[in-house]
Amino acid sequence: MHVELLSYTPDPLRLLYTAARTCYSAGRPAELWAETASAAAMQRLIEHIVASGHHSILEHAYFNFALGGISRSCSHQLVRHRLASYSQQSQRYVEGPFDYVTPPSWEGAGEAWGRRYHRVMGELNDLYREALAAGIPAEDARFVLPNACSTQLVMSMNLRQLVHTVGLRTCTRAQWEIRRLFEQVAAVVRQAEPFLGAFLVTKCERLGYCDERESCGRYPLRADVLDQEERK
Amino acid sequence: MHVELLSYTPDPLRLLYTAARTCYSAGRPAELWAETASAAAMQRLIEHIVASGHHSILEHAYFNFALGGISRSCSHQLVRHRLASYSQQSQRYVEGPFDYVTPPSWEGAGEAWGRRYHRVMGELNDLYREALAAGIPAEDARFVLPNACSTQLVMSMNLRQLVHTVGLRTCTRAQWEIRRLFEQVAAVVRQAEPFLGAFLVTKCERLGYCDERESCGRYPLRADVLDQEERK
Amino acid sequence: MHVELLSYTPDPLRLLYTAARTCYSAGRPAELWAETASAAAMQRLIEHIVASGHHSILEHAYFNFALGGISRSCSHQLVRHRLASYSQQSQRYVEGPFDYVTPPSWEGAGEAWGRRYHRVMGELNDLYREALAAGIPAEDARFVLPNACSTQLVMSMNLRQLVHTVGLRTCTRAQWEIRRLFEQVAAVVRQAEPFLGAFLVTKCERLGYCDERESCGRYPLRADVLDQEERK
Amino acid sequence: MHVELLSYTPDPLRLLYTAARTCYSAGRPAELWAETASAAAMQRLIEHIVASGHHSILEHAYFNFALGGISRSCSHQLVRHRLASYSQQSQRYVEGPFDYVTPPSWEGAGEAWGRRYHRVMGELNDLYREALAAGIPAEDARFVLPNACSTQLVMSMNLRQLVHTVGLRTCTRAQWEIRRLFEQVAAVVRQAEPFLGAFLVTKCERLGYCDERESCGRYPLRADVLDQEERK
Repeated sequence: MHVELLSYTPDPLRLLYTAARTCYSAGRPAELWAETASAAAMQRLIEHIVASGHHSILEHAYFNFALGGISRSCSHQLVRHRLASYSQQSQRYVEGPFDYVTPPSWEGAGEAWGRRYHRVMGELNDLYREALAAGIPAEDARFVLPNACSTQLVMSMNLRQLVHTVGLRTCTRAQWEIRRLFEQVAAVVRQAEPFLGAFLVTKCERLGYCDERESCGRYPLRADVLDQEERK
Repeated sequence: MHVELLSYTPDPLRLLYTAARTCYSAGRPAELWAETASAAAMQRLIEHIVASGHHSILEHAYFNFALGGISRSCSHQLVRHRLASYSQQSQRYVEGPFDYVTPPSWEGAGEAWGRRYHRVMGELNDLYREALAAGIPAEDARFVLPNACSTQLVMSMNLRQLVHTVGLRTCTRAQWEIRRLFEQVAAVVRQAEPFLGAFLVTKCERLGYCDERESCGRYPLRADVLDQEERK
Repeated sequence: MHVELLSYTPDPLRLLYTAARTCYSAGRPAELWAETASAAAMQRLIEHIVASGHHSILEHAYFNFALGGISRSCSHQLVRHRLASYSQQSQRYVEGPFDYVTPPSWEGAGEAWGRRYHRVMGELNDLYREALAAGIPAEDARFVLPNACSTQLVMSMNLRQLVHTVGLRTCTRAQWEIRRLFEQVAAVVRQAEPFLGAFLVTKCERLGYCDERESCGRYPLRADVLDQEERK
Repeated sequence: MHVELLSYTPDPLRLLYTAARTCYSAGRPAELWAETASAAAMQRLIEHIVASGHHSILEHAYFNFALGGISRSCSHQLVRHRLASYSQQSQRYVEGPFDYVTPPSWEGAGEAWGRRYHRVMGELNDLYREALAAGIPAEDARFVLPNACSTQLVMSMNLRQLVHTVGLRTCTRAQWEIRRLFEQVAAVVRQAEPFLGAFLVTKCERLGYCDERESCGRYPLRADVLDQEERK
């Protein structure tokens, strides 16, 4: 799996700060943008707004990623996040041989299982190539390709949606591959923009409790931490 | 493949008519809704508005479909349409044995190819079941399952998005399975609501020309039909 | 202000139940839809899924409202909710005289203020009509019309988005008019579908604490209720 | 009215090219991104894809604008475009005095009309300030402010949505103020990125005909240019 940040909105902190101040001040946005403000002052305002649950200003910062080496299972889940843009390698147009992803549990189940896994992947790639050679079109030949086949995409997502998606997908209940993917997505954003990247946390950290049925132990369940009697 | 219309907005013509009249009249929507108008009068107004490219009123009519017996290749393409809602059978939670889709071209390539296809599907299902029995979790065992595996979904889409998606996906250049899917989606809408269903046509029919690189012959290419000199 | 539920997805509980079961069972959606299940059993499954934060199945239920007698200030805020469909009375095409909304605080500021408010509304309506008569087009004459002018819309929103929007807009910190609007929206849904309508609560009730900077007292602030030390 | 491009995705041509090539090649996106390709080669590929109606790659390029000096009538129309992000000056938090927009038709109707317009604007600003001073909250005092009041926003939109919105709003049938706004939006994009900005044209130019009921004369009506008999 590889995740790279290809590009993103330049100077995003200043942009978010300008957007936030546009809402609450009489100044023109272009003037607010040109104003000098310390990074600390800009960060204080953004932190304050985000802490109050007003995430819409985060939409102005936009991130473009190269994602690769993930399985088609993983990409099928990924593209269910609809507030994002994807350009994905096409199995209609790109003819293998394909790489594939190996879940640790196959090799963990014993040496024989690992060998079987790799053997069947090889066989499917062979069958696929033979089918192409026999004149079966790529869009049909791929029907024998497994979920394990790796794929790659360019994905663009704004920061609000990143906060939402990283929150969900880095939960320990998420499937391991997409969890790893969004841990890396969060990591490359944090590396490029440490302040903004710090908003990319698992949902329990934002909520203060676990809202799943069972907690992994990182945060207590809602019922265990919120005294239901506290409601006035 | 099976497509059923589970449910949809009751009396959609009257709703779209009420929405359209709300834009252009002083009357209250609830009164406009209660007004008597002939079906013909309501249809004339909707037709007129849609012909002028103002599709937003179509969003008020919402259709819920049951889709099944399509391949995971097809569902992966399908869910790229982001202005819709999907609840899809999960390969993490539902453990086979799985059905699969057979592209006509495999059997068309000769009897041996058809037999090979069915044999490998059987082998993959067997391997999958053995892997589950060996304790490999379903979310990892499925890595050996092929694109051919069939899946099912509940899909909801508003009429504007149906117009757009049917327009794209019933083009002869679309992949055969998703084309067949949206031909059936259009058919069940036309059966339930013939007037509204009549808006579900291939994009060339709406445009008046083919905007792809090569025409299938149904409509001429744009360059062949629009005299570029006509621009004033 | 008047809010009416014009139409909505028939039998929404059964549809959401079918969608939920499609994710987790091998049965075909059309069969699941036809299955007999008690209302109590369907409700238990939906409640369980929603409590775990999985709101996507709620998108299949769609509600169409007639809204009227709200100010253009209110409608300007309203249409900022982007995951919804609106058909709004046009000030380009519909020529007054217009009704208007009177905020309680104008009359509460003393009799003279109330009178002044109504007088200026009358004067603006007069000026508007004279401008139209002088040949100024409606789209420009309306520049003198005030935010108070009332407007009407047909609005369609799925249940997931209703949960989100009612959660935000019924907070006591929301502006009074849009708060009243969404209290009525929630009320008409609850009247039509008591079980599903029960999901339409203010965000603090869902969270278990207030995430604004200051609490109105209904729920304590997050910092007051979540012992930060509980994190393991 | 003022429109400024605050920021946008760096090197957007290379990003779109990388996204396009990711769909159709076996190379990794990060390698495709690093490859050397001439601007001409990149432009050829993008042009080709966009001409075939495949606009989704345009979503990866994102533009952030400062907009100001537009009326609240105009901003109310603007925010109806839902696939975009807006941070707008709040009339709940920002207390005047406000500037306002003057439609040319008021002054064009004769000197007396122009004077009346400016006088009523002054009176409304005075009334608003007095109401604030009397303790009426800003969110209610603003009910007397007119549609003419100017507002400002930070708006972010991806290139696909810019193509769509500029296409609609620069039509001569659009209201003059929003038309002028999107002409300037298109102009600042064209200035920054001439190649990509060239996609920002009125819808008739893209279609090859006018799809409104009456043509302004720039392009002929569809019925006048497409021989309905050409359909095979």
